[in-house]
Amino acid sequence: MLKLFYTPGTCALASRIALEDAGADYEIIRVDFGKQEQRSPEFLKINPKGRVPALSTDKGILTETPAILAFVAQSFPNARLAPLDDPYAFAEMQAFNSYISSTVHVNHAHGRRGTRWANDEASLADMKSKVSETMTAAMELIEYGMFEGPWVMGETYTVADPYLFTMARWLEGDGVDIETLPRIKDHMNRMAGLESVKRALADA
Amino acid sequence: MLKLFYTPGTCALASRIALEDAGADYEIIRVDFGKQEQRSPEFLKINPKGRVPALSTDKGILTETPAILAFVAQSFPNARLAPLDDPYAFAEMQAFNSYISSTVHVNHAHGRRGTRWANDEASLADMKSKVSETMTAAMELIEYGMFEGPWVMGETYTVADPYLFTMARWLEGDGVDIETLPRIKDHMNRMAGLESVKRALADA
Repeated sequence: MLKLFYTPGTCALASRIALEDAGADYEIIRVDFGKQEQRSPEFLKINPKGRVPALSTDKGILTETPAILAFVAQSFPNARLAPLDDPYAFAEMQAFNSYISSTVHVNHAHGRRGTRWANDEASLADMKSKVSETMTAAMELIEYGMFEGPWVMGETYTVADPYLFTMARWLEGDGVDIETLPRIKDHMNRMAGLESVKRALADA
Repeated sequence: MLKLFYTPGTCALASRIALEDAGADYEIIRVDFGKQEQRSPEFLKINPKGRVPALSTDKGILTETPAILAFVAQSFPNARLAPLDDPYAFAEMQAFNSYISSTVHVNHAHGRRGTRWANDEASLADMKSKVSETMTAAMELIEYGMFEGPWVMGETYTVADPYLFTMARWLEGDGVDIETLPRIKDHMNRMAGLESVKRALADA
């Protein structure tokens, strides 16, 4: 059975929603960041990067949200969570997910995990103070460019939707005014109404 | 025909090698960072993010290296550049590419493009001074963990190989001693011997 190593409030939410969307039979294994369990020897055997999500499968353990999202879509084709038969459309969806992973999430991380990239307190404060600007800029690129509507890729829901939703939930804490992003706000509200999302958030 | 918007020395090299590996008919369009062409109104119409690579196709423009690499592999299945019929193996390859994109490349970027995330000169210097540490740590995770050998994914060459090669070429400039990473060094040397790589680098 699939097992998702999961921490509430992290980007692992996107993979959890995708698993719910897919109708997958899966188990949640909590990783308590408060107890630094992601750095424990036991967890580092699961994911040497010390991060969530990690998805344990019959064949081994997968990491990295974009890879897990595509894997869920490909493993549950009947759920139609990605354009699996069109390499161009699939790549567009993957480009969106890659942008979230390598730019949006990275911008966000500079507010809380700046020690990944700098040491001095002043540097960390400088990085933190810039997060609202960088997150706003990235979200504006999505709002006015990449986002097709009503779902990320257009008329059809894909695994890009839970990933955008996961980021959108961070915007208030990052000092971004979602009122300036009406399409992303509308998307967030529609996502929050889905049964899959309610299940994924029930014990968050 | 495919057109790759390309700048020598950037991560766009990975996509170019993959196109060569695929035997694709493609054209190179140079984007001159020295002239800030990536910020020109003309180029921002191609890629509003102001970055390379961008791949123009008959259906539209694709961005983000992991998405382009998977697209090339899926569009040229006879070249066998990815495990296309095995969602788990495909996801492992994608997880590798996603790690390069969201962690390795991001670590590197803190040495040259720190203004993406901070403003003060002292912060930029702090970030720059930490690059050799973060790049070494990331490359050690690859060297001792993810890298299967002799190619990234094991016995079979995939589009993950040009992506690792592209990062490995940055290590010396990032203050990482490749002698401490013998498997990555060996991989780099074998990559440099491939005809596809020689063609991709011929006018670099």
